[in-house]
Amino acid sequence: MTLTGQQLIGNSESADSADTFQGMNPTTGKPLKTRYHEATTAEVDRAVSMADKIFGTFRDLLAERRADFLEAIVEETLALGDEFLELASAETGHPLARCAMERDRALNQARFFEELLREGSWVDARIDRGDSNRQPLPKPDVRSLLQPIGPVAVFGASNFPIAISVLGADTISAFAAGCPVIVKAHPAHPGTCEMAARAIISAAKRMNMPEGVFSLVQGKGNEVGTHLVQHPKILAGAFTGSLKGGRALMDVAAARSVPIPFYAEMGSVNPIFILPGALEENPEGIADGFVNALTLGVGQFCTNPGLALGIQSDQWDQFSALVSERVAKYPPSTMLHEGIHAAYTEGIIGRSENEDLLLLGESDAEADPSACEAAAYVFETTQQGLVNDPTLLEELFGPASTLVSCAGVDDMVAIAEKLEGSLSATVHGSEEDLIKFKPLLKVLQRKAGRLIFNGYPVGIEVCHSMHHGGPYPAASHSFFTSIGTRCIQRFVRPVCYQNWPNSQLPLALQDENPRGVWRMIDGERTRDEL
Amino acid sequence: MTLTGQQLIGNSESADSADTFQGMNPTTGKPLKTRYHEATTAEVDRAVSMADKIFGTFRDLLAERRADFLEAIVEETLALGDEFLELASAETGHPLARCAMERDRALNQARFFEELLREGSWVDARIDRGDSNRQPLPKPDVRSLLQPIGPVAVFGASNFPIAISVLGADTISAFAAGCPVIVKAHPAHPGTCEMAARAIISAAKRMNMPEGVFSLVQGKGNEVGTHLVQHPKILAGAFTGSLKGGRALMDVAAARSVPIPFYAEMGSVNPIFILPGALEENPEGIADGFVNALTLGVGQFCTNPGLALGIQSDQWDQFSALVSERVAKYPPSTMLHEGIHAAYTEGIIGRSENEDLLLLGESDAEADPSACEAAAYVFETTQQGLVNDPTLLEELFGPASTLVSCAGVDDMVAIAEKLEGSLSATVHGSEEDLIKFKPLLKVLQRKAGRLIFNGYPVGIEVCHSMHHGGPYPAASHSFFTSIGTRCIQRFVRPVCYQNWPNSQLPLALQDENPRGVWRMIDGERTRDEL
Repeated sequence: MTLTGQQLIGNSESADSADTFQGMNPTTGKPLKTRYHEATTAEVDRAVSMADKIFGTFRDLLAERRADFLEAIVEETLALGDEFLELASAETGHPLARCAMERDRALNQARFFEELLREGSWVDARIDRGDSNRQPLPKPDVRSLLQPIGPVAVFGASNFPIAISVLGADTISAFAAGCPVIVKAHPAHPGTCEMAARAIISAAKRMNMPEGVFSLVQGKGNEVGTHLVQHPKILAGAFTGSLKGGRALMDVAAARSVPIPFYAEMGSVNPIFILPGALEENPEGIADGFVNALTLGVGQFCTNPGLALGIQSDQWDQFSALVSERVAKYPPSTMLHEGIHAAYTEGIIGRSENEDLLLLGESDAEADPSACEAAAYVFETTQQGLVNDPTLLEELFGPASTLVSCAGVDDMVAIAEKLEGSLSATVHGSEEDLIKFKPLLKVLQRKAGRLIFNGYPVGIEVCHSMHHGGPYPAASHSFFTSIGTRCIQRFVRPVCYQNWPNSQLPLALQDENPRGVWRMIDGERTRDEL
Repeated sequence: MTLTGQQLIGNSESADSADTFQGMNPTTGKPLKTRYHEATTAEVDRAVSMADKIFGTFRDLLAERRADFLEAIVEETLALGDEFLELASAETGHPLARCAMERDRALNQARFFEELLREGSWVDARIDRGDSNRQPLPKPDVRSLLQPIGPVAVFGASNFPIAISVLGADTISAFAAGCPVIVKAHPAHPGTCEMAARAIISAAKRMNMPEGVFSLVQGKGNEVGTHLVQHPKILAGAFTGSLKGGRALMDVAAARSVPIPFYAEMGSVNPIFILPGALEENPEGIADGFVNALTLGVGQFCTNPGLALGIQSDQWDQFSALVSERVAKYPPSTMLHEGIHAAYTEGIIGRSENEDLLLLGESDAEADPSACEAAAYVFETTQQGLVNDPTLLEELFGPASTLVSCAGVDDMVAIAEKLEGSLSATVHGSEEDLIKFKPLLKVLQRKAGRLIFNGYPVGIEVCHSMHHGGPYPAASHSFFTSIGTRCIQRFVRPVCYQNWPNSQLPLALQDENPRGVWRMIDGERTRDEL
């Protein structure tokens, strides 16, 4: 496929600006060949206007048509072949197998939403029947269901160039909901974005979707994204990335004359609590699992465990030694791009200079900075160390973590109380631990979106019950998730119909329930017709 | 009952500040006797600290215990007797019968949430079973449900001193969710707030709720409320009132270092589209219904119809005349307080001076400003009038409306496109109208939270399918409602448990499903155990 580096606005291409940038191969430090044009405000406006114009048409398509569209996206993405994976690998330093895994993950997710649409009950249809004889006032017939909100702006993550980018759950769930999407391409993988966007546009054309249901705009700095979020016809935003970037866009969205929800999934420290019983049962297994979770994908996961906490003891010291041994064997690997590499390096220097932290272990082999390589590091400290330097409770993106030894249950609970909101919190424990550390479990339920027992936070199952979010700064709004069925809720709002004629109601609210969806009728859940 | 005018912080009273204010009787223009103390920041902090401290205990109570608490609130409120209604009437100018209706409405709502808790399925429990043999990676057991978020700040509305204030859906649904509540009393009905708060505190004591589950703070200006929303331990806010007040608090919530959701239900113009077929069938009935909706409660409803649109014709002129006749008969009545009366008067003067508006009709009797009385007014204009003065598309709180004659279907659709977000939009139409005005119906689905056919927007049914919200400025976030079952979603967030021990899971997620709630297991809805 020939990449043009232009904005893909509906079915047209556009390069109004001569200002261009290039992707970089982090492994070689060299620019990749395509030049990507910075989108102008006029180009962004065109994309949004098109999306706004066809929103009504797209919204009113039968759900099956949107399901067919998702199916076609899967097919067109597969048709991109290895070239797609190779470009993703070149732009991000991810091994090819990882890129293939990401593609499979993204496509399974699209199929999952396709099924959700074909089944149809996700719209949460509710009917309360009227009663014209009720005293003192007649009871109206009231029905409601979830309807799409309008054009959505999507910002993908640098660390998942396929699975959390153009083809990620944000775009797919917005389409499923019935919302047109404008993606601001990630400047660290602009070519992967363009290829994925072309697959979506091919699918849209083939399935006769209205033109403008999808557009892609490129930009290296913040201007394009800011303008997009400020556009009055954009009605929601979705973002995965850093706290700094996410918060900046949250603030833009909140400051609009008509504020919009901006769903940002941001940083997280993902603490792991390793309790004494579990440590006694399986120290080697936990050390293996922890270091694996810590270094997987060069530590570039939003669920990377940045803190591990245990109770001061000989066992904990032995566990620390096991972790140190394993970290030493980790071969330094290429990070996503220079910016992330520089931030990681700076973070490690800061921790090395912190007098309350001891360097417990690091990769034996030396990292090659010209290939953006990161070594793994594990530090150790005590409760007091965390008190002295609260930045240790913040995310450091990369393969580094800090082991914290606590004096006892109360100290561990006190640390847990101090944690910021996190995507996940993990507990390794025995039956006995669960009783003794009950207060810890209680506190963690206030702190995280997902609680994991005897496992690791990396790897997020795409399913109905998944919640990938949590209290700020894990996410901008703790009600919403960015992965799993519930993520479609970000792009819908209830619309309520009072005494509305049956023939004019959305299908899921009509008496006959022609699609046979689950509904709540007078408070009872049923698939029956009225 | 003797009112003290003090802050009610948990089970204690407090009056740190000597700075006081009084309620006013708008009918007499005279102050009522109790002096209410301005809450100090230390008092607000104490209330929030108590709420935060007992949050874990309140959250973990069995749902039945919280249901019993709601039941006790109903009983204690009834025990306040007529004194409560009389005070509400004195503070707001609402007739006693209206106050009684409000109390019934509030108590029915509390019983509705009590039922919701006893039934239990509202927590949206989801289970996806694990599969340790899945390739390439084992599938974890993932379960999730909605959990309370923490202490909530509530700001009631001036126009519903009982039903949308201390005892309103905000407080009741937050309790149902498991969240402690701090209410900032409305300064226009501080005594009604104190009495209602005392009923809640009595109920909390009697049902052994943890102290601090509820507090009430008083304040005349914005400082107390602002400090409350800024408090780091407050995790959500709920507000019903003006756009100006709601937006100011939204901005405070968004600017926090840890932003919180602030759910504001604000102004709305609630347009009524009266289509030719309906007008031909029942001009008198619609004129009656419209003027009744317009003047009900002295027009002080957030669903008050501020615009009525029709197609230019002799019939429309006749309808206008019918409206004018009915408006003339409306006896000027007392508004809630001086501030609202002054804003209404100013709005009417502005419209009277607008050259594009004609005064179509007004109350024959003269309003007595010393009794805060408002006359009803109806203006008329054309599409061009709306274009010339977009403030006509904004809410004017009180018994005033504008009839707009449109040249045809396209013009009417063009006006609909220009509307801001609204709580409701109403259509009066015949079968034939529905076909001819299809494009209008489509546009209205983008503009409003609730669509009403051949009825009126005032009066909001408390039920599962109700949506009382809509695109901004009707509400701060269009996903959430402030009335009906769905309003509990404002005070919860999903918490996800991965491979978590069955015995440690919340009841609704345990294999045995001991409460028999509806759950989604592997995508299927069922009440079965696992």
